[in-house]
Amino acid sequence: RAWLGEVLYDFPSPSYGELENGFALMEQLFTDYTDNELITITVNPHAVYTCSPDLLSRLGRFAAEGQALLHIHLAENADEDALCRERFGVGPVRHLDKLGLLGKRTLAAHCVVLDDEEIDLLARRGVKVAHCAESNMKLASGIAPVPAMLDAGVCVGIGTDGSASNNDVDMFGEMNSVAKVHKAALMDSTVMDAETTLSAATRGGAAALGAQGLIGSLEAGKKADLIVVDFDRPHLSPVYNPVSHLVYAVRGSDVVHSMINGRLVMKNRKILTLDEPAILAEMGEIRREILAMQG
Amino acid sequence: RAWLGEVLYDFPSPSYGELENGFALMEQLFTDYTDNELITITVNPHAVYTCSPDLLSRLGRFAAEGQALLHIHLAENADEDALCRERFGVGPVRHLDKLGLLGKRTLAAHCVVLDDEEIDLLARRGVKVAHCAESNMKLASGIAPVPAMLDAGVCVGIGTDGSASNNDVDMFGEMNSVAKVHKAALMDSTVMDAETTLSAATRGGAAALGAQGLIGSLEAGKKADLIVVDFDRPHLSPVYNPVSHLVYAVRGSDVVHSMINGRLVMKNRKILTLDEPAILAEMGEIRREILAMQG
Repeated sequence: RAWLGEVLYDFPSPSYGELENGFALMEQLFTDYTDNELITITVNPHAVYTCSPDLLSRLGRFAAEGQALLHIHLAENADEDALCRERFGVGPVRHLDKLGLLGKRTLAAHCVVLDDEEIDLLARRGVKVAHCAESNMKLASGIAPVPAMLDAGVCVGIGTDGSASNNDVDMFGEMNSVAKVHKAALMDSTVMDAETTLSAATRGGAAALGAQGLIGSLEAGKKADLIVVDFDRPHLSPVYNPVSHLVYAVRGSDVVHSMINGRLVMKNRKILTLDEPAILAEMGEIRREILAMQG
Repeated sequence: RAWLGEVLYDFPSPSYGELENGFALMEQLFTDYTDNELITITVNPHAVYTCSPDLLSRLGRFAAEGQALLHIHLAENADEDALCRERFGVGPVRHLDKLGLLGKRTLAAHCVVLDDEEIDLLARRGVKVAHCAESNMKLASGIAPVPAMLDAGVCVGIGTDGSASNNDVDMFGEMNSVAKVHKAALMDSTVMDAETTLSAATRGGAAALGAQGLIGSLEAGKKADLIVVDFDRPHLSPVYNPVSHLVYAVRGSDVVHSMINGRLVMKNRKILTLDEPAILAEMGEIRREILAMQG
């Protein structure tokens, strides 16, 4: 199950060329995936420093008309904040708000550089936040004020970001990092306890996507998106607190079965829906091409 | 291969009872493991807040006479620093120095709360540091100034600390955290790069134990302590930079073979030297006893 979209910005993209082609591609995606049970198309302005106010507004209207999620990288680091203040006189959060783009279907990735008023504004507007702790650490963006956002009532989901800034894209490793980094940053071992962290990774993620009625917890009436973790492995024995174990000790390789929408896609660690050797072989080819390009 | 010791402090221990029994146990350990190829006994005062100056000095003499490693938790958090200043008028590092206990065979765990002069003092005395980033994060102790210590010439090895403060004791997860947390703390994505982090985890750890001539790197003449990592797994494909992969993407479960002192102890993920089912069964028994004690 995925929420996908083509990222748009003011300059040509290696993916689609000129901006207008990007709009055409986005419209095509919405057409192709109407009523798809597993793929939801989103509207994706890249960020306030790569998208003019006109482009942001245009994409905002597009998202509003389609009732689509508006996904944007927001307040990711000090450079973005400084550039936005220089160009527009306000930080990224207030800049988006002036454009009318902070709302319940706005999913803001990162949100590292925020003051208390900006946190309150995100909460009042019902903006959802995708917290990507490991990416923020690796890129030296900083540490997002997640406990303060949760206190203010902001809906926070946990993301891994992509493999460019988080090599392992392992949600279990990410929960481990999220639970730990805020304790160190705030010098308080009680913040982001295992329950809060697991909740942000599951229910929080679902709510951030506006899909809390469909996924995010094991409840009658929800879609069967679930994983089975093998707690009998030596490094997970013994178990006293399963929630603490999920956050602090389980790793992605402990997942033995995976089901999406009621369909088993991995059974006993074997992927049932993809040709793994063919994909690995293709990846090997791409690797050789890239190495050849590097000379 | 292990460096082991019984931890001593001013009060009775559940392990050995009265302090003098602890000294007797320690002496017995030194006798029993003389010339053992794999086990080296260390002298372990717990910390400056649990050991009187007299006990610290006595253990220091004991270590000096036996040419043993003196291992102590040092400057782990603000409470320890404050208590030490209140009792002795100086912070933990200077307190140990006044007692003559900072030297080349001193292995100090944590070293989170340090000023620049304390870092210089550790460097001048040749003290070795065991950096336990995940434990420091989970316990909200703070973030050790590792890049500054390395710049000052302090030998830093990476440790996981124990399972009480780091549930998974996975050195690969620990490298991942070490490489990331300092980038976030110093807002500098270039600190603790993959090479530096891998070096601290391998050569640094060996040097911290005074064993750089024996282990820590794959070199002719060193003991064959080595692991084999399976880089062909899907989540590790493709590989462009093996060192970056080891730090940011590999996890403990990717280790397929393990050799200690030239002897294979794990082959194809199967432990050859321990009765795994028996250990798991015993752990299950202990778990039941603990749950029963909890009522």
